[in-house]
Amino acid sequence: MSENVEFLKTNALFKNASPQFLKDASAAISVKRFDKNFVFFINSDEAQSFYFIKQGWVKLFRETLDGSQAIVDICTGGHIFGETAIFENNQYPYSAEAVEPCEIATIPLDLLKTEIETNNKFALDMMGSMARYRRQQDREIEHRALQNAPQRIGCFLLRLADQTADGGVTIQLPYDKMLVASRLGMQPETFSRALNKLKEKTGMEIKGGTIKLDDLEKLTDFSCSACSSSFPCNDLQSCK
Amino acid sequence: MSENVEFLKTNALFKNASPQFLKDASAAISVKRFDKNFVFFINSDEAQSFYFIKQGWVKLFRETLDGSQAIVDICTGGHIFGETAIFENNQYPYSAEAVEPCEIATIPLDLLKTEIETNNKFALDMMGSMARYRRQQDREIEHRALQNAPQRIGCFLLRLADQTADGGVTIQLPYDKMLVASRLGMQPETFSRALNKLKEKTGMEIKGGTIKLDDLEKLTDFSCSACSSSFPCNDLQSCK
Repeated sequence: MSENVEFLKTNALFKNASPQFLKDASAAISVKRFDKNFVFFINSDEAQSFYFIKQGWVKLFRETLDGSQAIVDICTGGHIFGETAIFENNQYPYSAEAVEPCEIATIPLDLLKTEIETNNKFALDMMGSMARYRRQQDREIEHRALQNAPQRIGCFLLRLADQTADGGVTIQLPYDKMLVASRLGMQPETFSRALNKLKEKTGMEIKGGTIKLDDLEKLTDFSCSACSSSFPCNDLQSCK
Repeated sequence: MSENVEFLKTNALFKNASPQFLKDASAAISVKRFDKNFVFFINSDEAQSFYFIKQGWVKLFRETLDGSQAIVDICTGGHIFGETAIFENNQYPYSAEAVEPCEIATIPLDLLKTEIETNNKFALDMMGSMARYRRQQDREIEHRALQNAPQRIGCFLLRLADQTADGGVTIQLPYDKMLVASRLGMQPETFSRALNKLKEKTGMEIKGGTIKLDDLEKLTDFSCSACSSSFPCNDLQSCK
């Protein structure tokens, strides 16, 4: 049975997808709900599919020999994951797990591979998407070298906020605080201390996952001075 | 006057370059020597060219509003830089400066753009190259979260060493120690302390830029336990 795959086009990567790709994807796609903690694949698994998130949050991570976990990314609706396996000898370069109940479309990786090989516009879009991810990673590496922990939390919050807002804003954390800490590569205790420091510096109020700030500029003054991007930030990224 | 551009093929990206690209590059390329500290371009400059390093080391970096410098990469012979400007509205996403006297080929960016748009094999190779860089960055981010400073220096040295060597090895630092520290995003004093700790843990001897180790395994035991890559390391990268 064919499914409507128009939703793929909410991701800029698919805006120039060929009618043939959409037809094949429509015949082969499977859309399902997955429980929290469902593991889609493990780092180095042989890759058959890539995934499109219709709803929910998915954690991409790798594990070290001594059992620690490094978050590669945390992605939400409209994003794909697992697709870079086509450049990694068909092995997933990370593990993927649902952070909460998710609705996910599973699509054969071969369709993506054929589309890249035969549709040059799509290949260009794929490169554009990889370049955006590269910029995001460059900034991440820069911040880990130059920003202190409170500044990095500040930057994370800024990317969730309406940066054009004049004056006060309310920011909603997209997932729980401990996951934000891992996303930022911080130990829970470092994260807590840094968050307190950030409150002190900016006067923000935190209640559960809701953060209120009476002046966004206090946050940008604090975080963006230790960043090479201009403000308003050009480096807003796909996955937060 | 046309120049021989066969040397481009030492970079895997150009293995499927079309005869037309090579012909056009041959007519437009300029190969010159540049002094130490020569600045090829500044972050956000409008991009006209990309660069191929024939010899020497080039530092790619960004600067923050408060004047700190973050190293994006340090590249040597056989590598290109500035090419991703084609995905960044024709602006360079970082600054580039010669770390030592260099021999560099300058090539119009338009030729690369046309080649990507018209030669699908080349586009695929470009994506492969971007994916390798992505893996390198993922590992870098992981290490900054999970490895301590001595382990990160250990990993840097391992990437310079012959990892298949049985027993003792001699490793030559490719550039001076302070640049290694910035490459790893460490303050000079952190770097010195960490290097001493690493000496203590592995028994390595350091004389200037030469490092001797009687047993490579001591270094891998120390560093690779806090890494998600398998050993021998699959994540060996182009730029060290």
